Amino acid sequence: MDAIVPGETRIGWIGTGVMGEAMAGHLLDAGYALTIYNRSTEKTRRLQHRGAEAVSSPAEVIQRSSVVLTIVGYPADVREVYFSSAGLIPHGSPGKILVDMTTSPPSLAEEIYQRGLERGMDCLDAPVSGGDIGAREARLSIMVGGRQEIFDRLWPLWERIGKTIVFQGPPGAGQHTKMVNQILIASNMIGVCEALLYASRAGLDLKMVLQSVSSGAAGSWSLSNLAPRMIAGDFAPGFLVDHFLKDLGIALDEAARMDLALPGLGLAKQLYQAVRAQGHGRSGTQALVRALAHLSHCPWNSLPQSSSLI
Amino acid sequence: MDAIVPGETRIGWIGTGVMGEAMAGHLLDAGYALTIYNRSTEKTRRLQHRGAEAVSSPAEVIQRSSVVLTIVGYPADVREVYFSSAGLIPHGSPGKILVDMTTSPPSLAEEIYQRGLERGMDCLDAPVSGGDIGAREARLSIMVGGRQEIFDRLWPLWERIGKTIVFQGPPGAGQHTKMVNQILIASNMIGVCEALLYASRAGLDLKMVLQSVSSGAAGSWSLSNLAPRMIAGDFAPGFLVDHFLKDLGIALDEAARMDLALPGLGLAKQLYQAVRAQGHGRSGTQALVRALAHLSHCPWNSLPQSSSLI
Repeated sequence: MDAIVPGETRIGWIGTGVMGEAMAGHLLDAGYALTIYNRSTEKTRRLQHRGAEAVSSPAEVIQRSSVVLTIVGYPADVREVYFSSAGLIPHGSPGKILVDMTTSPPSLAEEIYQRGLERGMDCLDAPVSGGDIGAREARLSIMVGGRQEIFDRLWPLWERIGKTIVFQGPPGAGQHTKMVNQILIASNMIGVCEALLYASRAGLDLKMVLQSVSSGAAGSWSLSNLAPRMIAGDFAPGFLVDHFLKDLGIALDEAARMDLALPGLGLAKQLYQAVRAQGHGRSGTQALVRALAHLSHCPWNSLPQSSSLI
Repeated sequence: MDAIVPGETRIGWIGTGVMGEAMAGHLLDAGYALTIYNRSTEKTRRLQHRGAEAVSSPAEVIQRSSVVLTIVGYPADVREVYFSSAGLIPHGSPGKILVDMTTSPPSLAEEIYQRGLERGMDCLDAPVSGGDIGAREARLSIMVGGRQEIFDRLWPLWERIGKTIVFQGPPGAGQHTKMVNQILIASNMIGVCEALLYASRAGLDLKMVLQSVSSGAAGSWSLSNLAPRMIAGDFAPGFLVDHFLKDLGIALDEAARMDLALPGLGLAKQLYQAVRAQGHGRSGTQALVRALAHLSHCPWNSLPQSSSLI
């Protein structure tokens, strides 16, 4: 494949949800010709108005493109897009490059790599973190596994959508790194929620408490960004509980496969299962505070005054 | 009591360990006359050379001082210093102020406040976070409970030793806030350790992984400051496992007293108990990674190459 050049290289994009639409938009802005596909066709409309060509299968996408990037939902969706009869791999041809940015199992990334290789294609796993805001502002962290030569060649694309872009190793290494990211978030979220519950039960002023603890050894992104939303009773999704549960399941499965016990991650998965059981699967991950509050019979909706919970 | 003025107000200081010595030193530097006491007398030598007067009991300290600050080890040490026959409360007199900066139970802070009040004294609980470096650089976070009027009057002292200084509420509120700080650290440490173990077992380059995950939603003080030490096999104490275990015990006791279930904190306490059982009570809190590694038969001493652990 030749160098990646706007106006020459034809790019394919599969998955135009909140994240995918923002990311694909940056490539349009940069001048790339874009062929797009999404299962729900109404989600391609805005990108079509901006000049993307929408087609009706992954097969058509890869036939029209040199590089195809995908960001869909669950591992089953990734399998469908890559392996089904109208999928990318069966319709691929030598020299093309496939990049899966969905968060999905490292073992699936390895399988995609192998099956791509059999058809003369290079596949990368390149999951991202940074959420919808990171996608809109092109500030994502992109964690890439595969062959470094291919990673290097795609640099013109990475730099349009991400800010922290690191090649992590062989196929699956990008997905493994994303799992590390989710493991970190999971246990820390438990700490943030339990800390707020303790403070509330103790009758403290939660905002004053945050002043004392946010900038020292207890500080974290989640404490600074999500604790204020929990206090305000704002459970709108930055990142969905349902999606986080999927990721924690993948991480636990992979850890088990590697014969590794992760008790904190196991607890986090169970508590997020409770968040979902309580009907908050479509809330943001900060809804964990509700499940933990419920455990001690301490309803947590909004919290204008900490003392209301004592 | 009159205003706090260097050269006029006589200050007492009890507890000249690593933290206490640095903090008391700042008051000497500011020109305050200091009377000091420590159970192990050799730990007062350096401050004596800098002009502090060392005496042989808390009783003598309070007889010579208008304000006495204490920072000792365990709750039993606090009780000894405040309540024993040669302690601060029995030898106190109206108008004097006592400030306990030890991390100890909120209920003990309330008891000190009450017993001080009976002798006409005002007592504050003012635990700190920031460790020995924060103490040396006078950048501690000081979390204060008691009467706000007294907190305000001591401002000239606070600003000599701390940077983030917040009045948190009635007696015990300072200690409760410190518990919030420790609850946050405890669960996050589990996440940091499990994330490194996962990354190591997956064969990733741990330093590259940190590049991808440190600045986004998974980021935290512990990840940025302690994960590199874990990777380097540096378990020198910034904060001792034994002391952290004491704090987690206090937090769990207080939570139980408030009828509050904190499963993440409970898990953290058990895992730190294992760190201690494995002989690392005098290591820094980052030694948690060893206990978790041990769980999956994965020795963790130093880690020049992640691949050594696969």
